[in-house]
Amino acid sequence: MKIESVDFFYVAMPVVTTEGDGSQDALLVRVSAGGYTGWGECEASPLASIAAYVAPMSHGACRPVKVSVEGQNLSSPEDIARIAHTITWDSMDLLQAPHTWSGIEMALWDILGKARAEPVWKLLGYQTAAKKLPYASVLFGDTPQDTLHHARKIRTASYRAAKFGWGPIGRGTVKDDADQFAAAREGLGKEGVLLVDAGQIWGEDVEAAAARLPALHDAKAHWLEEPFHGSAYEAYAALVAKSGSLRLAGGEHNVFMARHTIDYGKVGFIQIDCGRIGGIGPAKSIADYAVQRGVTYVNHTFTSHLALSASLQPFAGLAEHVICEYPAAPKQLAIDIAANTILRNADGEISVPDSPGLGIDVNTSALEKYLVDVNITVKGIPLFASKHFI
Amino acid sequence: MKIESVDFFYVAMPVVTTEGDGSQDALLVRVSAGGYTGWGECEASPLASIAAYVAPMSHGACRPVKVSVEGQNLSSPEDIARIAHTITWDSMDLLQAPHTWSGIEMALWDILGKARAEPVWKLLGYQTAAKKLPYASVLFGDTPQDTLHHARKIRTASYRAAKFGWGPIGRGTVKDDADQFAAAREGLGKEGVLLVDAGQIWGEDVEAAAARLPALHDAKAHWLEEPFHGSAYEAYAALVAKSGSLRLAGGEHNVFMARHTIDYGKVGFIQIDCGRIGGIGPAKSIADYAVQRGVTYVNHTFTSHLALSASLQPFAGLAEHVICEYPAAPKQLAIDIAANTILRNADGEISVPDSPGLGIDVNTSALEKYLVDVNITVKGIPLFASKHFI
Repeated sequence: MKIESVDFFYVAMPVVTTEGDGSQDALLVRVSAGGYTGWGECEASPLASIAAYVAPMSHGACRPVKVSVEGQNLSSPEDIARIAHTITWDSMDLLQAPHTWSGIEMALWDILGKARAEPVWKLLGYQTAAKKLPYASVLFGDTPQDTLHHARKIRTASYRAAKFGWGPIGRGTVKDDADQFAAAREGLGKEGVLLVDAGQIWGEDVEAAAARLPALHDAKAHWLEEPFHGSAYEAYAALVAKSGSLRLAGGEHNVFMARHTIDYGKVGFIQIDCGRIGGIGPAKSIADYAVQRGVTYVNHTFTSHLALSASLQPFAGLAEHVICEYPAAPKQLAIDIAANTILRNADGEISVPDSPGLGIDVNTSALEKYLVDVNITVKGIPLFASKHFI
Repeated sequence: MKIESVDFFYVAMPVVTTEGDGSQDALLVRVSAGGYTGWGECEASPLASIAAYVAPMSHGACRPVKVSVEGQNLSSPEDIARIAHTITWDSMDLLQAPHTWSGIEMALWDILGKARAEPVWKLLGYQTAAKKLPYASVLFGDTPQDTLHHARKIRTASYRAAKFGWGPIGRGTVKDDADQFAAAREGLGKEGVLLVDAGQIWGEDVEAAAARLPALHDAKAHWLEEPFHGSAYEAYAALVAKSGSLRLAGGEHNVFMARHTIDYGKVGFIQIDCGRIGGIGPAKSIADYAVQRGVTYVNHTFTSHLALSASLQPFAGLAEHVICEYPAAPKQLAIDIAANTILRNADGEISVPDSPGLGIDVNTSALEKYLVDVNITVKGIPLFASKHFI
């Protein structure tokens, strides 16, 4: 097969707000090869990612992503790795390139799976897919009372795990935060898995984060996510030395940074967004690395079930890596992207699709109304003009 | 002062080739505040950087750079740091943002310096500016004979230092590379400072790089630059353990990565491009860090004398950090950007300008012919339309 076409569809809610909700827009990628159609999704900033696809070359190590993809052979996973390698080399000085490539890469796996009538996780070498325990991801409330209310609702909705993040955490006193953690625990009940996401609020301030450890232990938090800037490995490692049984969680934008977060940052959980890291292949390599280092792999997914399926593939066969992020309350746009969804069973668990490719059909007719019209011309030549789905 | 306007000018040679020459295009930034005009230059991919400036917001942590800059107060270096901090936070998920911000940041320093009638390096806290020894940066020839010829020309042009890079290195045998290093040494003469840039050719293969160490020692190379992928710290550190007096050189895209290259990669020279790392402020923080860690700071500059001036400011006062990169044979576009240049004295040394701001006038009338017309519309609204200089 040859990669015949790559189309980007920028879709967005009519109004995008400053809330930390990544499901307000999406950049969908449709790739055609050998009569098959594959889909993927880039995270984030659709316009910047489109520009990285079509930008005129600056020099040999700053070529647009496009030139490494279109017309390439696609017959095996090795072809996907080869294209990825070319982009690493030829788009070395184009910072946005990994986000652009991520969505394309997912679509290539989708095509390969469809062509071989196998789910992507089998192409990755897994024989069976293990059930995952999805957590509902919400923001802390403005008050502990609000948080308690959210937590109770999540429990009522049969989630056995929940992540509370951002909001007031780190902005008030240690006692304020302790009340928030306690409220979340109370609402989830004794058995619920409680995850806390600090949203990088402490920058590199280890003492400020450490001051919250007793309350996190009291609330039996399962992990503390991103207490610091994503690259502040020294701060991560210093907090790990004080945190006892509470493990840290963090993720990163590329394979090297993810490995460093494990090796230097000493996290217990590594969170990977396939829409950022360069797709499914690099994510799988981090899953392998995590196993080797005794670290638990977790997906990072805040958008559609297309992105969710892609993000489940890299660790589908790792039975001991149970927890997974699940878009519990995405915007309608993200819901409308997928024609079929990955639903929770009676035990509140999910399974990666057991159908060819990513196993998600994109509901193009529902998406027309979200299409954002984009035109980019350079020297009078149209480099990008958005299309309708059909 | 308030930041009143930010204009981007994408300029390019009529033909851009795949050679590794970053002076084939440029993204100039002109900022107006309080009646002053400042100039900066972003490295690289002008279209992607423009898109990161104007892109519609995806969510609260993926806002365009524009919203953190326009209308902001600019009265002191602290204002520049404050804007940088806002971008780090509010454009966290926009990968291209640091490149876009870099050129703007330089222009803000240029304005502050002009407003205070002081060179930027004085605003950074240096009392005096030390002379620097520029090296000519060229590619290895296809054959040792070609390299010998290049090296002799460089010596004849009164350069006391030269960097040879990329080309055939690492692509043939150890003996082939040894012949290249020896040819460069022979052409430069005994006294010339010889720097070798491997262009990341060995990926993470420490043995392949180590096999070249004897020949590099024989040729008295002063540093070996980028033997590996920029983030392959383990490989860097493993080679340092074998390299004796030959120190490694490497650089990175952000402050954290630069610090990690020093701490985990154990480089002896840290090379910073102000057009990538977020401008002059972050570069100065790396210069301070380098001093603290006993590492030598070096600029990375391959384009205009505007970029050169910006890149000299962060280590202008460090008398022991002598070597600097100097665009020895840039494309005509890069020459035409600056109306005044930073010339070598009789000893082959250069000085950072001792005039207000960056001390470089942009030759706008010479640049009109290089202007690349760019138009970006989203939902029918023009988000970017390129302008003429006047």
